[in-house]
Amino acid sequence: MTNAKVTYIQGLQFVGTASSGHAIVMDSNPEVGGYNTASRPMELLLIGIGGCSGMDVVSILKKKKQDLTGFEVNVKGEQAGDYPKKFTAINLEFVVKGRNISEDAVKKAIDLSMNKYCSVKATLEGVAKISFSYKIVSE
Amino acid sequence: MTNAKVTYIQGLQFVGTASSGHAIVMDSNPEVGGYNTASRPMELLLIGIGGCSGMDVVSILKKKKQDLTGFEVNVKGEQAGDYPKKFTAINLEFVVKGRNISEDAVKKAIDLSMNKYCSVKATLEGVAKISFSYKIVSE
Repeated sequence: MTNAKVTYIQGLQFVGTASSGHAIVMDSNPEVGGYNTASRPMELLLIGIGGCSGMDVVSILKKKKQDLTGFEVNVKGEQAGDYPKKFTAINLEFVVKGRNISEDAVKKAIDLSMNKYCSVKATLEGVAKISFSYKIVSE
Repeated sequence: MTNAKVTYIQGLQFVGTASSGHAIVMDSNPEVGGYNTASRPMELLLIGIGGCSGMDVVSILKKKKQDLTGFEVNVKGEQAGDYPKKFTAINLEFVVKGRNISEDAVKKAIDLSMNKYCSVKATLEGVAKISFSYKIVSE
């Protein structure tokens, strides 16, 4: 069981803490009464899927002794036009930077995350169609 | 389209920024190579659904001229025991604090969020069963 408590501050600003104890502030656009001081709740889903899959891929590549010099996940989310404007598609681009990176190792790491380990992906894929690609940059 | 970029820092620490430009740090448990400096990616989903629905409910209650003195959302997420350990159930408890709060206004605000407006709820409900309750505290 993971617990979270989200507490109202002011305007449309809220602060959330969950089981690990760390705080995250959320806010909304000025057009709807927010002050744009922090991330939007929907952004947390995209940042969460990037972090979850990124942790898997980096862990696996390190176990495979790959010489990483950098790593990013670019995430794009498409939302329905009508309320409740749910995410209908999420695309992940994994950018692996390093020296003599094995493409096979990258493919295997991404496959394990997407199809076995990533809890956020497994939760989000019920509504949103999730796709992914990768790019290897030699540095 | 909402975009996010999640960048690897060190250990299992990542920083994510999305379209609004605000940064969120994520980390993992020491048992799996993290340093517990920040929220877990799965926690972002629970904090996100609490923030999203909280913004709706507070906005609607303010439009209905309710005299709020405080507001919280307690979120509980149940995860599957096996990988990928997706959320299978999420429960939200809305705690509305104030003076002479109308129970009808609270019920209507929560219903509008859960069934019409909350994008995070609409995205997560494909896999997780989402339930909710409320409590009114007179202050």
